[in-house]
Amino acid sequence: MNIYADNAATTVICQAAADAMLDTMKNYPGNPSSLYILGQRAKEKLEDSRAQIAAMINAEPREIIFTSGGSESDNQALLSAAMIGKRKGKTHIISSAFEHHAILHTLKKLEKNGFEVTLLPVHENGIVRVSELENALRDDTCLVTIMTANNEIGTIQPIKEIGELCRSRGVLFHTDAVQAVGHIPIDVKEQSIDMLSASAHKFHGPRGTGFLYFRKGIVLSNLIEGGAQERGKRAGTENLPAIAGMTAALRESIDGMEKHNAHKTVIRDHLIEGLSRIPHSALNGDAESRLSGNVNFSFEGIEGESLLILLDKKGISASSGSACTSGALDPSHVLLSIGRIHDVAHGSLRLSIGEDITMEEADYIIGSVKEVVEYLRSFSPVWRDLMTGKREFIL
Amino acid sequence: MNIYADNAATTVICQAAADAMLDTMKNYPGNPSSLYILGQRAKEKLEDSRAQIAAMINAEPREIIFTSGGSESDNQALLSAAMIGKRKGKTHIISSAFEHHAILHTLKKLEKNGFEVTLLPVHENGIVRVSELENALRDDTCLVTIMTANNEIGTIQPIKEIGELCRSRGVLFHTDAVQAVGHIPIDVKEQSIDMLSASAHKFHGPRGTGFLYFRKGIVLSNLIEGGAQERGKRAGTENLPAIAGMTAALRESIDGMEKHNAHKTVIRDHLIEGLSRIPHSALNGDAESRLSGNVNFSFEGIEGESLLILLDKKGISASSGSACTSGALDPSHVLLSIGRIHDVAHGSLRLSIGEDITMEEADYIIGSVKEVVEYLRSFSPVWRDLMTGKREFIL
Repeated sequence: MNIYADNAATTVICQAAADAMLDTMKNYPGNPSSLYILGQRAKEKLEDSRAQIAAMINAEPREIIFTSGGSESDNQALLSAAMIGKRKGKTHIISSAFEHHAILHTLKKLEKNGFEVTLLPVHENGIVRVSELENALRDDTCLVTIMTANNEIGTIQPIKEIGELCRSRGVLFHTDAVQAVGHIPIDVKEQSIDMLSASAHKFHGPRGTGFLYFRKGIVLSNLIEGGAQERGKRAGTENLPAIAGMTAALRESIDGMEKHNAHKTVIRDHLIEGLSRIPHSALNGDAESRLSGNVNFSFEGIEGESLLILLDKKGISASSGSACTSGALDPSHVLLSIGRIHDVAHGSLRLSIGEDITMEEADYIIGSVKEVVEYLRSFSPVWRDLMTGKREFIL
Repeated sequence: MNIYADNAATTVICQAAADAMLDTMKNYPGNPSSLYILGQRAKEKLEDSRAQIAAMINAEPREIIFTSGGSESDNQALLSAAMIGKRKGKTHIISSAFEHHAILHTLKKLEKNGFEVTLLPVHENGIVRVSELENALRDDTCLVTIMTANNEIGTIQPIKEIGELCRSRGVLFHTDAVQAVGHIPIDVKEQSIDMLSASAHKFHGPRGTGFLYFRKGIVLSNLIEGGAQERGKRAGTENLPAIAGMTAALRESIDGMEKHNAHKTVIRDHLIEGLSRIPHSALNGDAESRLSGNVNFSFEGIEGESLLILLDKKGISASSGSACTSGALDPSHVLLSIGRIHDVAHGSLRLSIGEDITMEEADYIIGSVKEVVEYLRSFSPVWRDLMTGKREFIL
């Protein structure tokens, strides 16, 4: 059995997106910035994609620029908001402890340039508390950036409440919605979102493309300087085939969202129930306010890396956290942020399931994880210490 | 007849590149940063692409990072060199007056941050003089950035001489080789290049990908912060399908380079000869040290935009300058840099031919341009003034 359960890292491109890319390469070969008809046809295709994507999040076409993906969108959003703040003498930014590194590392860069950053705690359930955000807001706060859904533990944040609070205080609100767009409903007006980052390959679109929504009136700063593409805000020849692919993929994701979420929620909860029966294990993050595709567990007394390797041998592709940091030996900053200690955070598993997963596959996953965890514990010195009482169980 | 003569703006993707993209999407769907076999296979494919591309410019694999394209590569190269310079107290940068805006606009940004920029003249032939570069070098010069071949007039710069001079003075040398890679031989060791930018869609590769070569020992600064991809120097899930497509396209471009250049040079010179016969016209840039695909002419007494529109109606896709600035009303900074006055620069035409162009098509272009120029002049007030002696001919 081969089960791909790492859709939070990347998804397989859908046929509609691949078809749209090929069609665009073949039938819209011009450079959208060129004057002649081939260029103008490409320009129309580009603007049609922009209008479609804007409509799917209830934005205006002029509020969307296309980027190379989620990381670029995050970087540009934060640097833009910081520049706007700086011009007004506001240099305080609020974020959360478990944002993606595209946010956290950009915030570090801003700190070096005179900004002050407050990272809100996310508590045991992996959810930011609006009351704590309210307390953290200051007169010199220029930006709040809180992700819509966490990439490791899948917890969904109270975006609408955060957006309304920020709006009422005149503070810009950006959300890294890379894990959310195409998976849960997004309405930038209804949720009072000022800026939003998205990445196509997280919803079965192509790699290397994404978009940044920015509410009209917000003046973006360029991350990439050069030509006058994207109304002067993002230089470089527009990646039209990928943009068309992203548009097709987002359309399909949104059209199937309700059905897919219903199915995935059933499977997710079955997985959670099954894995919970493994002794000294625990679900990471809230069980309810969570993406339908995300299951993240910690197992005491084992190493996550060995778990992944043995699951891989059983045909299950899963991860211990973000693919962006999987080369690192440090335990996940996300798991630490919800209070897992180092040892426990190390023994963790993220399953991010796709919409085509079956109940049979879920049972196979449960059985395999159970078997592998037992096997790894059988020769784990930590587990022996736990069993002999030399160490105390945490989970 | 339909003739695409704007290959400097973008090229049509080749079959080998499209096939490589599709194959990669299908057979290497994993995230290269993932631990499991699907991820590791993708990682191998990524590193194989890197090794191939490195070898094609005589670099080491570790000296290549993949980016979203030429503009991003240019931005990152310049910011990196500036940071290296700043740490040593060196804040003087030398470039040329006719660089791409990805360079010039980034230099403007650096000027706002305390750097001093000297732009070398490129003279009537559109070529930087090494002796002038030598005179401009200072003890606090941290970077020289000169493009390998100009995007509008196609003139090829004395890169090897510039590289050797910079190397002997301990100054970093970057070259924007977006128009050159895949079109003329590049050997970063032989040409003493420290950093080089390339873009796939200029050599029949896919949009949205490119690379930055940086000689080992050079510490890059991040433009996009986030995950640890590309050895921590460029965040964001690697765009593997596009990278594989770029690799296939570069292979094909280099394999066919000699043959294509021989053919295109014959056609180019035929075009130059034919268009020169139009009265009061002139080739822009050196006739010899020039890309085989580039023909750029100025015609006195006409508007370039009208010329393009009428050529388009005859099935010829061409441009007046860079697609990146085609929305702008300003005359090309490149043509101004070689001494064309505003009026003359406005009446210009860039033909950038592909390797499949035929002599018959070239003749059709010559005939069409001649006809359209004559037609436009027939009701041009400027032309009337020139003919009646109210204005003096320049060309």
